[in-house]
Amino acid sequence: MSIGVIYGSTREKGNTEWLTEESIRGVPVEKFYLREYNILPIKDERHTEAGFQEVADDYSQLIGKIIKHDVLIFATPVYWYSMSGTMKLFIDRWSQTLRDSNYPNFREELAKKSAYVIAVGGDKPTIKALPMIQQFQYICDFFGMTLDGYVIGKASKPGEIQRDTKAIAAASQLRIAFLKHLEME
Amino acid sequence: MSIGVIYGSTREKGNTEWLTEESIRGVPVEKFYLREYNILPIKDERHTEAGFQEVADDYSQLIGKIIKHDVLIFATPVYWYSMSGTMKLFIDRWSQTLRDSNYPNFREELAKKSAYVIAVGGDKPTIKALPMIQQFQYICDFFGMTLDGYVIGKASKPGEIQRDTKAIAAASQLRIAFLKHLEME
Amino acid sequence: MSIGVIYGSTREKGNTEWLTEESIRGVPVEKFYLREYNILPIKDERHTEAGFQEVADDYSQLIGKIIKHDVLIFATPVYWYSMSGTMKLFIDRWSQTLRDSNYPNFREELAKKSAYVIAVGGDKPTIKALPMIQQFQYICDFFGMTLDGYVIGKASKPGEIQRDTKAIAAASQLRIAFLKHLEME
Amino acid sequence: MSIGVIYGSTREKGNTEWLTEESIRGVPVEKFYLREYNILPIKDERHTEAGFQEVADDYSQLIGKIIKHDVLIFATPVYWYSMSGTMKLFIDRWSQTLRDSNYPNFREELAKKSAYVIAVGGDKPTIKALPMIQQFQYICDFFGMTLDGYVIGKASKPGEIQRDTKAIAAASQLRIAFLKHLEME
Repeated sequence: MSIGVIYGSTREKGNTEWLTEESIRGVPVEKFYLREYNILPIKDERHTEAGFQEVADDYSQLIGKIIKHDVLIFATPVYWYSMSGTMKLFIDRWSQTLRDSNYPNFREELAKKSAYVIAVGGDKPTIKALPMIQQFQYICDFFGMTLDGYVIGKASKPGEIQRDTKAIAAASQLRIAFLKHLEME
Repeated sequence: MSIGVIYGSTREKGNTEWLTEESIRGVPVEKFYLREYNILPIKDERHTEAGFQEVADDYSQLIGKIIKHDVLIFATPVYWYSMSGTMKLFIDRWSQTLRDSNYPNFREELAKKSAYVIAVGGDKPTIKALPMIQQFQYICDFFGMTLDGYVIGKASKPGEIQRDTKAIAAASQLRIAFLKHLEME
Repeated sequence: MSIGVIYGSTREKGNTEWLTEESIRGVPVEKFYLREYNILPIKDERHTEAGFQEVADDYSQLIGKIIKHDVLIFATPVYWYSMSGTMKLFIDRWSQTLRDSNYPNFREELAKKSAYVIAVGGDKPTIKALPMIQQFQYICDFFGMTLDGYVIGKASKPGEIQRDTKAIAAASQLRIAFLKHLEME
Repeated sequence: MSIGVIYGSTREKGNTEWLTEESIRGVPVEKFYLREYNILPIKDERHTEAGFQEVADDYSQLIGKIIKHDVLIFATPVYWYSMSGTMKLFIDRWSQTLRDSNYPNFREELAKKSAYVIAVGGDKPTIKALPMIQQFQYICDFFGMTLDGYVIGKASKPGEIQRDTKAIAAASQLRIAFLKHLEME
């Protein structure tokens, strides 16, 4: 089992990252910080004659690395009650990859994966981030990917997440599951 | 009553625009096509000493124009069950404007506004776009803005929206309300 | 195409009924007013040795009549942000019918049906009744039934629904679709 | 701090009760098993001249006892993606209590309370029970009551809940919070 963590934060070492670390401490993973990549907004060219054109940014190489993992952890701060724009730009581009001849089996590849969402927000996130969780579920359903769990933490200021004992306990549960899984291999 | 329409589509004259036109035919509005503006992802600098730094893009001038309207129509295609990344980048930046000394009353200004959402998606949007509607409601709640209505259309290929008679009827209802409102002024 | 309307209101000729009438005027339907039937809360006996026991109430004869229709309209007031308890008691009993040897094909029968929801609530229902719509979708998904549409009206006091022009327009759209469907037969 | 637990299960010692016990082990509570009470469906008489009439069932005495607690735990199995009909009948009756001269401060009383939801379902409940959680939030919002937490467990057959280590960990977190709270008094 190989795990890729996709970070949608725009701030370094923020609350979302801290909580995510709790869930992967001691677990081998590959980390992708989307803020370090230049990812342009998708241009919907599905219905043009030529179809999607190549885009001169970092998306293509990035998705090539991410697709290799069996488990994807989407770690995103809750911005305005949904995933960060940075994360959304990345996911929007999947529409292009679905039609990219370099990835003829993109859908089938994702169908085999297991997904997790770890999200931290400041404004009653255990309620107000639920629509975002439902959206991740719909995304997973589209591909036949399994959404195997999610953790929602509450924090605004740097370090605040360390007081959310419920979220930390939930992150630990993920970690235990990851470790058990690795042991069995 | 002055109306601003904020378009989050990345394609010109697509289904979302067509449906939105149905709701504003004969209604004076100012249109903002986000795809024509360069809007960078927010960088969360809320907690840095210096706070948010000026960003060299088009957001600042854009929000300055939009803020002048009494009614805001958010017209967005449904990308992966939520607003387009293009629209999300725009809204994410509101966190910066909330702390921008050029807009000391941003929250109070928005509190006076009335908002509408017009969205078109391909995959069972009258169900699967509901989390997005809930998110817009949370955004409105945050500012004390009123979400006065929404229309969800179903379409994928260019022109398909013209067959969604339910959505067209709903868009017409918005239009009638806008026209009545203007008449009374 | 044969249509059954299942009314979950506890008040006669209330707002929910009025709005539902708008959607079926001139359309032949069979009406079921749940308040006229004695339906007891389900007792979960799935895991007892003997399984579900017969219940001395009106449910059994009622479901026998309802199951004959091709289209089911669930017309319910929004009580506390979800369907009325009266409607819920009825639906809860489906768990029993699923295991009732008198209905060996209950699931398959429902899978062929098309469902609609018409709901009226007083407290911002176009937003706050959305979780209820999602629940009806999940129920339909369980059986493979299609949720082909829903109308949410806003009203509290008797007669108030007649001012909700948006909901009336939406109900008319349903009616047009029903009439067109019947014509084609 | 005084805690009342309201059980909506129809089966004795089922999964919902087991998970709830995990959250209150060693914590003094008063338990109310709704199945042991005769609670009739509400009849909407808000708009009749005489208003709500007294109903000859057990609701009145029950709400009188429940209202005395500071914390209310709603423990319900997930039936058809929402609370059990048994629980819904109980909550529907609150509309009557809101207009009952014996409870002139019902709303204000509830506003002071803290609520928790513990729910167990069989069909992907961490996703499909979310609309139900949102409904509980709306109910709490109506009264100004605080929804301080919820736990969703997955189980169908008797005893299955004991394998849902995530839900058990979450229930333990509630328990720790209850115990800490009591200690501080």
